[in-house]
Amino acid sequence: MRTLLIVSHPDILESRSQQYFLTSIQDSEAVTIHHLEGQYPDGKIDVEKEQALLWQHDRVIFQFPLYWYSSPPLLKYWQDMVLEDGFAYGNKHVLAGKEFGLVIMIGVPRKEYQAGGNELFSISELTKPYQAMANKVGMTYMKPLPIFQFAYMDDDQKMDILTEYWQKLTMANDDSLQARETWMIEQLRNAFLTNENAAATDTIGFAIDHMQEQRENMDQLKMVLDDMN
Amino acid sequence: MRTLLIVSHPDILESRSQQYFLTSIQDSEAVTIHHLEGQYPDGKIDVEKEQALLWQHDRVIFQFPLYWYSSPPLLKYWQDMVLEDGFAYGNKHVLAGKEFGLVIMIGVPRKEYQAGGNELFSISELTKPYQAMANKVGMTYMKPLPIFQFAYMDDDQKMDILTEYWQKLTMANDDSLQARETWMIEQLRNAFLTNENAAATDTIGFAIDHMQEQRENMDQLKMVLDDMN
Repeated sequence: MRTLLIVSHPDILESRSQQYFLTSIQDSEAVTIHHLEGQYPDGKIDVEKEQALLWQHDRVIFQFPLYWYSSPPLLKYWQDMVLEDGFAYGNKHVLAGKEFGLVIMIGVPRKEYQAGGNELFSISELTKPYQAMANKVGMTYMKPLPIFQFAYMDDDQKMDILTEYWQKLTMANDDSLQARETWMIEQLRNAFLTNENAAATDTIGFAIDHMQEQRENMDQLKMVLDDMN
Repeated sequence: MRTLLIVSHPDILESRSQQYFLTSIQDSEAVTIHHLEGQYPDGKIDVEKEQALLWQHDRVIFQFPLYWYSSPPLLKYWQDMVLEDGFAYGNKHVLAGKEFGLVIMIGVPRKEYQAGGNELFSISELTKPYQAMANKVGMTYMKPLPIFQFAYMDDDQKMDILTEYWQKLTMANDDSLQARETWMIEQLRNAFLTNENAAATDTIGFAIDHMQEQRENMDQLKMVLDDMN
């Protein structure tokens, strides 16, 4: 699976959260990072090139800071220009069957995004225009990943959200324990293959064996339970 | 009451619906028409000038064609630039107490904007980012005026929607019969004062007298009913 990460941020070098997440994935082969304001500093979008990029990927993620409950303007312009009638909807549905997700950086605490909170509505309510877009072009809409108040997180919280982020970009669109285990073993294998430190690879190899053994134990337990029914 | 009509359309001369509505109000003193793409062809927004315009008006209307369930990008950029912390929210709330409304031109039939329809969500659901914006800056959110499939309307339908449009721009934010009558008498008085055709002014004068008489009859009837309780 290949993921196209479309990032929109007018001042990305000044954004610590954007730098944190993008640095963590910069060498990944599974993810194409595509920063619109960096790619198109004059605001003119190459529609054919963008459509070709969409063709080549199985999952599309919009990543942006939430400004007035929506994206920065260049991403909106991208939508208006690239998702044409006859490409994304109408006679052709090139995006049909692909997956669509949102990664949104938010400065206000999570608790304000609900009835009675200062922001009045939930993220699910405020992002309905994107859900409607996915519906129109036939994409599978994934659960959004809102990242609230990154600046106030401690290092552990940042690592936790980085794992969620990496899962949103590369894991099968499935929250089951099995999907998460499969994904984790895959990540460990990649680390095993690319790490040059012998002690570290030993540890990683041990972790993979351990997880696979646990997996088998769980499978056997499930078979026993199934037989009892 | 003064209304600031902020229009966003990247190709307004080609839009028959925009031309129809804007032509009808072009000489009005009550409404300031402010077409963003016409004002800022290079996309650079004069923030101070825009903030001064907001100061000077009591009602702000965003008028735009619905592209991907939101506005064209220049209006989004306007929001991000003009509605600053310390102006619209935070230490100062310059817009608090003013009214905010939407006039949205939509190419798809109304019936598709609901659960089970092709567009999945209602206009009220899709415009929550604007409702949240009004909430944040302390503006009163008016019922949106969505104009569905203008191109397919006959002349009578166009006249009906033009009246609704004119009410959205200039009538008190109140759907009561009394508010509508007061507004109608005011419109007729303006027509009376500006019309140079004697026969036409006679007719208008008669209509005003008739409406005022009806108004008094209604008021008397209401007093009688109140006394009976």
